[in-house]
Amino acid sequence: MPKPKKHVLVCAQGRPEGHPRGSCQAKGCGPVWQKFSDEFAARRLWESGLQLTNTGCLGPCHLGPSVLVYPDGVMYTGVTSADVEDIIDTHLLFDEPVERLRAPADVW
Amino acid sequence: MPKPKKHVLVCAQGRPEGHPRGSCQAKGCGPVWQKFSDEFAARRLWESGLQLTNTGCLGPCHLGPSVLVYPDGVMYTGVTSADVEDIIDTHLLFDEPVERLRAPADVW
Repeated sequence: MPKPKKHVLVCAQGRPEGHPRGSCQAKGCGPVWQKFSDEFAARRLWESGLQLTNTGCLGPCHLGPSVLVYPDGVMYTGVTSADVEDIIDTHLLFDEPVERLRAPADVW
Repeated sequence: MPKPKKHVLVCAQGRPEGHPRGSCQAKGCGPVWQKFSDEFAARRLWESGLQLTNTGCLGPCHLGPSVLVYPDGVMYTGVTSADVEDIIDTHLLFDEPVERLRAPADVW
């Protein structure tokens, strides 16, 4: 595939229960990843120049689930599956970050 | 941590032996990840505004191991642990991509 216009990175990091850092997995990144995967397939977003990748730790574990969009370098925190369509429709397709989901300035 | 100046993504995808796509894991991404981790720790690169994350599939499995640097959007393929210092010294610290390692134009 060619270089994507937008590359969505979804943290899938897990940690043992009780770990002091918590994890995006414990905070529910599974359904977020699934929703992105489903939308990418249903809307043929791969063929539209978008890319989707799961990742290890992106940093702000305590505020997860975390989703990072490059090349913009926009980090979203506290993302739920209900937010995924907003990220696609507003940011990925129309280049306007979803302000309400942006990570606080002290973490990104 | 604040938004990084450069974010290094190292594909860590594995697939069962004999899988037609192969994988970066089968092609030796483990030592590449380890070398990046060691260099980031030894040189305190995290504190210098660089970030390192392992990922699922980045795309060009047949040419792996794959390493992607954002926000530049530079994809490297066929990376070995012997290439890691070059990527750090030339690209991450001095903003000049390592041309000999860049993915072919048809895959990125």
